[in-house]
Amino acid sequence: MSAALPSTVRGLLAGARERGVLLFGLTPPRRSASPEQVEEIARVTLARLTPLDVDALVLYDIDDESDRNPDERPFPYLPTMDPAVFHAEHLTGWHRPTVIYRCVGKYRDSELRDWLEATDPDRVATVFVGASSGSKLVHTVLSRAHALRRDTRPELALGGVAIPERHTRGGDEHLRLLAKQERGCGFFVTQVVYDVDATKSLVSDYHYTCRERGIEPQPIVFTLSVCGSLKTLSFLKWLGVAVPRWLENALRHAEDPLTESYEQCLANARELAAFCRRLGVPFGFNVESVSIRKVEIDASVALVGRLRPLLPG
Amino acid sequence: MSAALPSTVRGLLAGARERGVLLFGLTPPRRSASPEQVEEIARVTLARLTPLDVDALVLYDIDDESDRNPDERPFPYLPTMDPAVFHAEHLTGWHRPTVIYRCVGKYRDSELRDWLEATDPDRVATVFVGASSGSKLVHTVLSRAHALRRDTRPELALGGVAIPERHTRGGDEHLRLLAKQERGCGFFVTQVVYDVDATKSLVSDYHYTCRERGIEPQPIVFTLSVCGSLKTLSFLKWLGVAVPRWLENALRHAEDPLTESYEQCLANARELAAFCRRLGVPFGFNVESVSIRKVEIDASVALVGRLRPLLPG
Repeated sequence: MSAALPSTVRGLLAGARERGVLLFGLTPPRRSASPEQVEEIARVTLARLTPLDVDALVLYDIDDESDRNPDERPFPYLPTMDPAVFHAEHLTGWHRPTVIYRCVGKYRDSELRDWLEATDPDRVATVFVGASSGSKLVHTVLSRAHALRRDTRPELALGGVAIPERHTRGGDEHLRLLAKQERGCGFFVTQVVYDVDATKSLVSDYHYTCRERGIEPQPIVFTLSVCGSLKTLSFLKWLGVAVPRWLENALRHAEDPLTESYEQCLANARELAAFCRRLGVPFGFNVESVSIRKVEIDASVALVGRLRPLLPG
Repeated sequence: MSAALPSTVRGLLAGARERGVLLFGLTPPRRSASPEQVEEIARVTLARLTPLDVDALVLYDIDDESDRNPDERPFPYLPTMDPAVFHAEHLTGWHRPTVIYRCVGKYRDSELRDWLEATDPDRVATVFVGASSGSKLVHTVLSRAHALRRDTRPELALGGVAIPERHTRGGDEHLRLLAKQERGCGFFVTQVVYDVDATKSLVSDYHYTCRERGIEPQPIVFTLSVCGSLKTLSFLKWLGVAVPRWLENALRHAEDPLTESYEQCLANARELAAFCRRLGVPFGFNVESVSIRKVEIDASVALVGRLRPLLPG
């Protein structure tokens, strides 16, 4: 299969439309890591990823979201390396495209502009993420970041985040996707999905509104993440991921929550794939491990192997 | 299969625990119907039901629920015959058990007592339904009706209603089921299910709380109803049935909403059956046509035929 994997962002985007893409999401090392530790992490990461059948790597940009949620964060917030630096300096052995997230509120206008101008649009796509709450003080708001990219680097492929839970609350997340699409977003990546019903509702509203307006739906990449412990479960919930009550019960009572959540992720992927095919909405999957425990990362890698057959081509 | 179908309520309840039951729910004729019309309806009903592989008939007691919902009722409220009268006088040709609903708030204490005493517990089980809203003036509250039955006719099998939508709102519907169980309910019948996630969450919470308390879960009968038109859809929603947004979209855009909803009912039944089996919660299905259009009744009859293979025994 590796022969068909994209070496450029152009190939990645074409793949996303034609056959569905498979991504793997990673958080860069902590900023406190020594250069040797970072090298070792990069080495292990590449060893893990290279044999995997993924189309692109996703590197997150971690922001302190404690403003969004007053509850105690189950895992402490630790500043992480700039994903662009980790990519440019340590992942040179990765020859497929990389999607670099940008929490745009963290950056001044000029910082974002410099990064946009320095970034190779053949190898890198980006996803801009807005502020985690309305009250947060930010350097750059999302719409300004979109305008910056359009004015300085329109050839850099841009994606947006999609949050099904926001659709459950307000019923208008599909309109937010359409607004982002108008401002240049060519694909969407969801937050971690455990609430399939909410996700299907978002996709459905997006599909029918695109049809009404006579525009093409852009690929939606569903993020899946196994959950190997109750601590990871509370972290997912802290992050704003809705976990249906029955599934939370199943994980809490499972002898092996990791296997339970792995099977559930697969079942969810099957259901979302069938749903998108039926509507004709292009889709893909992104596997992310929200924890850094080895068993959870191993299960994430195993999950990737099971997802490719669910993609269209 | 008919040889195995129960002729008594005792057989029905044993079946509900051991192999799962299949019920068919009907609204009695309008009170304004002439005796000839009622006879004709009874004849057609029996002709439709006798060849069907159902364990029991359910006869609803219709109450004016306009107090519960200020929106205009999509179908007008028309008073219907007393289900017990329809059963006793017109369905004498039905030789399997019948579950007669009682909206207990409609009846005075003495009326309920008279009915309980006159009812044959071998042929009839009952489901008591409480008031449709807290502000409604009622003759008899649900707990009083439960006490009446316990004191005057404990041998009459009693069921309760289960409303997954209430679980979504309050998260405590399973505790309501357990309270009803303590007051004598030996089975539960849900409101029409279109929100499978909410229903699974209710079943899950009920299961784990039963386990904690060391008590046996009682059978839960899931009510399914096809929806052949947008008017039926709005009636379902008026009745308080939660329809996931994606499913509402699918029905609104379907060339043939009846087939779409029929397939969805089947898929929902499969998912609920698999879920209950896994937890070990006894379950069954009840098929109800909320509209009186012939195509929808025919589809309901067809649905019954597809549900038996999903039951355990």
